[in-house]
Amino acid sequence: MEMIKGGVTAAKGFLAASAAAGIKYKDRLDMALIYSQKPCVAAGVFTSNVVKAAPVIWDREIVSGNGSARAVVVNAGIANACTGEEGYSYCRQTAEKAAGLLSVSKQEVLVASTGVIGMQLPIERICGGIEKMAPKLKETNEAGNEAARAILTTDTHEKEAAVTFEIGGVTVTLGGMCKGSGMIHPNMCTMLSFLTTDLAISHELLSEALREDVKDTYNMVSVDGDTSTNDTALLLANGAANNPMITEKNADYRMFCEALHTVNTALAKQMAGDGEGATALFEVKVFGARCKEDAKLLSKAVVTSNLTKAAIYGHDANWGRILCALGYSGAQFNPEKVDLFFESEAGKIQVVKDGVALAYSEEEATKILSMPEVTAVADLKEGEGSAAAWGCDLTYDYVKINADYRS
Amino acid sequence: MEMIKGGVTAAKGFLAASAAAGIKYKDRLDMALIYSQKPCVAAGVFTSNVVKAAPVIWDREIVSGNGSARAVVVNAGIANACTGEEGYSYCRQTAEKAAGLLSVSKQEVLVASTGVIGMQLPIERICGGIEKMAPKLKETNEAGNEAARAILTTDTHEKEAAVTFEIGGVTVTLGGMCKGSGMIHPNMCTMLSFLTTDLAISHELLSEALREDVKDTYNMVSVDGDTSTNDTALLLANGAANNPMITEKNADYRMFCEALHTVNTALAKQMAGDGEGATALFEVKVFGARCKEDAKLLSKAVVTSNLTKAAIYGHDANWGRILCALGYSGAQFNPEKVDLFFESEAGKIQVVKDGVALAYSEEEATKILSMPEVTAVADLKEGEGSAAAWGCDLTYDYVKINADYRS
Repeated sequence: MEMIKGGVTAAKGFLAASAAAGIKYKDRLDMALIYSQKPCVAAGVFTSNVVKAAPVIWDREIVSGNGSARAVVVNAGIANACTGEEGYSYCRQTAEKAAGLLSVSKQEVLVASTGVIGMQLPIERICGGIEKMAPKLKETNEAGNEAARAILTTDTHEKEAAVTFEIGGVTVTLGGMCKGSGMIHPNMCTMLSFLTTDLAISHELLSEALREDVKDTYNMVSVDGDTSTNDTALLLANGAANNPMITEKNADYRMFCEALHTVNTALAKQMAGDGEGATALFEVKVFGARCKEDAKLLSKAVVTSNLTKAAIYGHDANWGRILCALGYSGAQFNPEKVDLFFESEAGKIQVVKDGVALAYSEEEATKILSMPEVTAVADLKEGEGSAAAWGCDLTYDYVKINADYRS
Repeated sequence: MEMIKGGVTAAKGFLAASAAAGIKYKDRLDMALIYSQKPCVAAGVFTSNVVKAAPVIWDREIVSGNGSARAVVVNAGIANACTGEEGYSYCRQTAEKAAGLLSVSKQEVLVASTGVIGMQLPIERICGGIEKMAPKLKETNEAGNEAARAILTTDTHEKEAAVTFEIGGVTVTLGGMCKGSGMIHPNMCTMLSFLTTDLAISHELLSEALREDVKDTYNMVSVDGDTSTNDTALLLANGAANNPMITEKNADYRMFCEALHTVNTALAKQMAGDGEGATALFEVKVFGARCKEDAKLLSKAVVTSNLTKAAIYGHDANWGRILCALGYSGAQFNPEKVDLFFESEAGKIQVVKDGVALAYSEEEATKILSMPEVTAVADLKEGEGSAAAWGCDLTYDYVKINADYRS
């Protein structure tokens, strides 16, 4: 498997375009269109929030049916959430408009929205955007990159990842783009992830692969409780690589799962590091938990602790807050066995051994904590469970963005 | 029942003193001593964190035994958490020192600490503080108020409440003090609450009354998951009011529970409004939930949502974030039936009816949201469950305090 440059247009037969449609922002790209030359099977994973945005309801119907899809229309600025019947009708009109211009069925057009909750979409501008994009569809990396930029809200940069791998003697490509700092900072009201691959695979296995991998990637940038109304991950496979169709959980399937995990992990980390107002990516690795589920609880508790996040912003090796967060995570362990380390490109330092502070150098710790990517490592010495979670520091700018966001 | 001025010395026979012992802060009060002239029964409720501070372990042994107590020693600055055997031995030495000077048993001395996790207590300074305080014990309001000031960390002001009520023809008094913004902002590493009453009541009923009331008061300023290592609520009853001893759940018991609820609610709201960096108390009331437990989940989800808290700071009627938080709370409801209101001393405004935005005046909403106490009210129209939760806004200063706190 090899990481390559590219995103949503990396796989064969996928094209993208974007447009400045003036949905809510002025003078910036705010719509993207993804199109596959061949019919795709599509898998999707959506928010568990009781309050579901209209596009989530629309897409869920498509991927839970036969999962046949040809295109995705995305807009930034307005989330089309809490918009009732009127909001849902705009999903249908969006799909109809794209279907007409692309000569596909409206049931093959997925839609996604991100932005402010509660406002109705300006449907004429949405349709105008689709008219601009349809004739501009291209399979270049640049077209994919522009689409990745068009779907951003408070994100500061586009997020893409792609890999190639071999299956049955042919090269398969998987690429994707995403936006949002996901559910940790749900104010963007959306983590959106769009993945495309030229793999030939059954709808059932494609769905299962996505559903399982999301748990260890995007969901580890989140507290379950913080799931927004719009969160969506879509994975389209068009079979253009001409590999032997994957219909069972064989070595090919496992190869694909590994590729999917690589791309999703890369995108998840990019989201975490671009959390609103963030100055650092904060990774938490837990080893030695009683089981994997415990390790996930523990690492997520630390990565979402406001106190720990503020300490990371202050470059402060405040390990007490980490022990405290481990303690309230819901997982059982003996605090008197815990070892804690901080790690970054500036080095690695142990700060706690068997639950008690070591006489470490605060100066060295501060140096390690001042890097743009900081990792806390906890070893609980209870069992074999391990997990990683990703977040970012909590900064003045987070507050500023969220006190000002809507107005 | 009548609210009166006073705190931990309001009830008959309770004395307090404080001292500047130089535990971690310089030139400020950082120790408090509470003493009862008569033997008390003591009830306590403690953190559910797996990582429990040494004083929590010490106190739990006392209140889960016969609950006999005479005094409480409190220090601010160092939490005595994650301090192993050595930390526990300092609890014993603290109790021994106070017991000697007050001529009581060391098993009758409760201890509490708040501050930084992981540092050991300077036990000689603790003992020096007790020596200063023991001869200064007084039953005045001023002595109680000074004690309330001595136990603060990043709090900006002392928190006290007291009531009187009649039982069996005699006047009973209940008063208390607390510190911390509790578990919502667990960085102070402690919500501490100390309540005293001259009521005569059995240990069993005193314990049950406290245990039950904490769920609707202090625990509604919190996410369960955010419980710190030191959280402690202690309630001492010395019988000095000479009421007929309460040994069953009769009208007298219910009267006492009501008084306890009044004092705990007042203290809980004072804590929430003094959350780190807060500019406003943020109250969330939920009506019409399927049951009380659902109403608690719903109100707590909103009051702890960073996004909603930042919007309150920005005086922004960002109701979408409130609907989103209700949606991920874990409680089931129909989003299309929700009504939402904002309320403060500047007025009341409805912003959502049946899940969809009303054409309300943003100007009026901003005026309502600019007051120092702001309430969001959600009516779910599903059933009879109601609850209230208390928090505060999320501000630059919260980040500043927590990026700098330890250093």
